[in-house]
Amino acid sequence: MRGAIEAGGTKFVCAVGTGPDDLRTTRIPTTSPEETLAAAVDFLGGDATSIGIGSFGPVDLDPASPAWGHITTTPKTAWRNYDLAGAVRRALGVPVAIDTDVNAAARGEARWGAGRELRSFLYLTVGTGIGGGAIIDGRVLGGVSHPEMGHIRIPHDLAFDPFPGLCPWHGDCFEGLASGPAIEARWKRPPCQLPPDHEAWRLESHYLALALASLSCTLSPQRILIGGGVMRQAQLFPLVREELNRLLAGYIAVPEVMPPGLGERSGILGALALSETAA
Amino acid sequence: MRGAIEAGGTKFVCAVGTGPDDLRTTRIPTTSPEETLAAAVDFLGGDATSIGIGSFGPVDLDPASPAWGHITTTPKTAWRNYDLAGAVRRALGVPVAIDTDVNAAARGEARWGAGRELRSFLYLTVGTGIGGGAIIDGRVLGGVSHPEMGHIRIPHDLAFDPFPGLCPWHGDCFEGLASGPAIEARWKRPPCQLPPDHEAWRLESHYLALALASLSCTLSPQRILIGGGVMRQAQLFPLVREELNRLLAGYIAVPEVMPPGLGERSGILGALALSETAA
Repeated sequence: MRGAIEAGGTKFVCAVGTGPDDLRTTRIPTTSPEETLAAAVDFLGGDATSIGIGSFGPVDLDPASPAWGHITTTPKTAWRNYDLAGAVRRALGVPVAIDTDVNAAARGEARWGAGRELRSFLYLTVGTGIGGGAIIDGRVLGGVSHPEMGHIRIPHDLAFDPFPGLCPWHGDCFEGLASGPAIEARWKRPPCQLPPDHEAWRLESHYLALALASLSCTLSPQRILIGGGVMRQAQLFPLVREELNRLLAGYIAVPEVMPPGLGERSGILGALALSETAA
Repeated sequence: MRGAIEAGGTKFVCAVGTGPDDLRTTRIPTTSPEETLAAAVDFLGGDATSIGIGSFGPVDLDPASPAWGHITTTPKTAWRNYDLAGAVRRALGVPVAIDTDVNAAARGEARWGAGRELRSFLYLTVGTGIGGGAIIDGRVLGGVSHPEMGHIRIPHDLAFDPFPGLCPWHGDCFEGLASGPAIEARWKRPPCQLPPDHEAWRLESHYLALALASLSCTLSPQRILIGGGVMRQAQLFPLVREELNRLLAGYIAVPEVMPPGLGERSGILGALALSETAA
């Protein structure tokens, strides 16, 4: 059996198993690092011969860095500069591999989900934040660090949408305009309370399509999978497809846009797939 | 000796040699495919044991495609669906490798220029059009097709800059707002006639920095090299660096921004490096 941790800002999902069919999972609220890790280790100990971690971030993924496996500049101060990979390895005494939560989700989709047999695809999550991971030519995309696709800049017509954006760093970047909290702040209601035909969704699909257009021109993916809480509004998918078609205007092939094949299990299954690379 | 072709919309540069120090080049105006190829073959024939081509595009780079090596949907109608790689191979009887002009330039910089010893960097050209190629984790970035980074969307404040953009497909995409022809159309003068302290350059550096911010959040390059005719305005570099720093706001590491190490020879030298992969 292998073990997996999907380390999120509000909860840790832990699992043991070998794949989607035998996965045994538990959920642990994210409190202090010590308390959260103790509960995770309690669940994983004994069964898991290696651990894959998909973590909130930013995470230092440079194997040559002394801070490899640390969560770095997170706004959650208790977790800042926390050696997550090291703590798990020391507590369980097994090999550990780590990646970002969205890269892990992309790995899960590549292995068991809607990314199987694709050379190039993109996984985006749109919820409390916006993040993306890409598999390009069969490999997880990473430069000096991991992508931060939620923070790309997109056109914002202030005359039409005077909402200034919520991102503490960039104001009206993609995440600042289109995350769940941005929708809530703009319309003064949580997204789940906005009816499916509310104008919020056409605007949201416009912002999503603008970002997908830029990501498509940069990465040329065959398919784009979008998960996360906001995308439970399934009416967004046809709206995004229509708007993306309009924006790309026939210049490049339009990638398929669809929900993740593994639903909300992309991340934890991706962490499990990652555990196979732990050394 | 190996051979190289940098196939551009206005000229073909052809070269034979082994590297920057012994490169012998010629320039051929781009007219009809037949006439242009005949002149190129005349120069390259006999000396070159393999050919690398960096071409204007879009180019079909899928090795499994029957249209591999063809220029596809170019607005230059005489060259549309032209089998450039096949024509060169048949005429010279040697192995041929092909990539886009900007990917070739990135390969040239990786081999002999300002990308040596870097894991991840980006090469952008800003001239008649805007294009980009990236080396990520040591490999040329490509998804289903090659990147079309010139067509990403960037914020455009119409109240401040009412120019609608020049891109025939997307209007005010990055290329539509920031290419050489866009600068000329906006200010009614060719870029080379605008003085270095003209307000055009601050606006241009703003658009360049917006695009670099998005590309940095997506690709996480260590360095960004910008060539092309517009960048002969060397005052742009400090302006772009300052604005990119401001836009990224400390959220991610700011990549270095500088001119290509090979000047205007990135493309032809990259085509030469590419010739080594021809089979």
